[in-house]
Amino acid sequence: MSFWTKYTNIIKSNKSYVCLGLDSDLAKLPSHLLDQEDPIFAFNKAIIDETKDIVACYKPNFAFYLSQGLKSLSSLQKTINYIPNHIPVILDIKAGDIGNTMANYAKAFFTDWGVDAITANPLMGNDVMKAIEPFQDNFAFLLALTSNPSACDYLKTNDLYKNISKDINNLSNKIFGAVVGATNSQELKELRDLMPQTLFLIPGIGAQGGSLEEVVTSTCFSKEDARFVINSSRGIIFADSSERFAQVAREKTESLRVQINNIIAELK
Amino acid sequence: MSFWTKYTNIIKSNKSYVCLGLDSDLAKLPSHLLDQEDPIFAFNKAIIDETKDIVACYKPNFAFYLSQGLKSLSSLQKTINYIPNHIPVILDIKAGDIGNTMANYAKAFFTDWGVDAITANPLMGNDVMKAIEPFQDNFAFLLALTSNPSACDYLKTNDLYKNISKDINNLSNKIFGAVVGATNSQELKELRDLMPQTLFLIPGIGAQGGSLEEVVTSTCFSKEDARFVINSSRGIIFADSSERFAQVAREKTESLRVQINNIIAELK
Repeated sequence: MSFWTKYTNIIKSNKSYVCLGLDSDLAKLPSHLLDQEDPIFAFNKAIIDETKDIVACYKPNFAFYLSQGLKSLSSLQKTINYIPNHIPVILDIKAGDIGNTMANYAKAFFTDWGVDAITANPLMGNDVMKAIEPFQDNFAFLLALTSNPSACDYLKTNDLYKNISKDINNLSNKIFGAVVGATNSQELKELRDLMPQTLFLIPGIGAQGGSLEEVVTSTCFSKEDARFVINSSRGIIFADSSERFAQVAREKTESLRVQINNIIAELK
Repeated sequence: MSFWTKYTNIIKSNKSYVCLGLDSDLAKLPSHLLDQEDPIFAFNKAIIDETKDIVACYKPNFAFYLSQGLKSLSSLQKTINYIPNHIPVILDIKAGDIGNTMANYAKAFFTDWGVDAITANPLMGNDVMKAIEPFQDNFAFLLALTSNPSACDYLKTNDLYKNISKDINNLSNKIFGAVVGATNSQELKELRDLMPQTLFLIPGIGAQGGSLEEVVTSTCFSKEDARFVINSSRGIIFADSSERFAQVAREKTESLRVQINNIIAELK
């Protein structure tokens, strides 16, 4: 099933726009998990078991699966395989390279690792996008604007984020989405104007700040299909470090899910 | 030993500025290796054995170590471990993320995987660089200009590559270098003017085109320390697919090494 079909199905079945970020840093796991054979996978498994009926997608971040070499990459592989097939998996790797190399990233992650979508860095230009295009059942979220303080260094200089956004808007919105960092409602509205139908992956809620109300009202496409997923990672998965961590993660996810849905319901 | 010390030592001991790119795509390996237990590692091992006295560094490209999941990542790990300690290893991954995540990439690759340097994508701004700075014994080559056709989409628009280059120049040149795509001598000279003392990683020789003479004469810092490494990957490692592949790779590497050194020797 294509990423796009999975997305359109799950926002109805789970009534959720929550992208749950699995930034499962070994150093931050609840201590009672550390004597397990595979603590990272045990953590993710518990989180997935508790949240799979209330999320729109899962987003493991590649950087957090490298600290133990192959062992932590094995945790990533097991996590990808464990996520139920109808739930989209976005691997957050921000890959970007020349055509031949980018094609290898796409093939490896989509075909061999079995993820539905990746995040990609468009700095090297359209060669990055062209390498994704043959994978019509998959999806890439291209960085348009990020929520970190130094996004102003390049993305916000000379309208780079606008140029990237215009280019994303000219690509198939069934294969390409945008990472849209949430800092203020004016930028968010501008980005939605530049990419009216594009699926947004919106980080910057929770640990990185950003007002949920602003995000939702500024970028919602329609009441039936908001055309976004709103990510929260550390604010959910590390909210509790006791044996109740997964249950608390569910409560936090559910709270975010309901908040988003309530804001959408109140839109005119 | 720090990356910088390894670099300054090896350009003297091996008299070489050749960065040998280990883009060891399983699909392109000599067929007689495919029945080995670990064909990618067997290939790299043979290439390293034949070239370790005539290279400046090795640069495995992460994208080519993903196609068989953990198995090919294990080939990467074995390759990194096999490369003699005095030869710098640059992992070409073009990583770029927000501070917390980028710090995890840096720690994982430098500390756990044991590479000396990485390539990094500066699109998200100075947060990327700041996360590298604590690793004073390591090194990151930041993308300044790339050699692919679509580099003009963003890097060559509104002087983005110049802005990035100026920022790189303000960073410590013992920790930060620049990836400088070779397309014409005017741009190369301009980049050297913007970053007079920065170590350049120059791709685009060989398979991607680009004149060696132009590259060397436009970017050489001094006869004693050219302050660059010139990469060739496919043009060397896949030059021959017979049982002589590693020997041919040595011949190609040696030819490039001598050509570079001869052009430097003729400089005024």
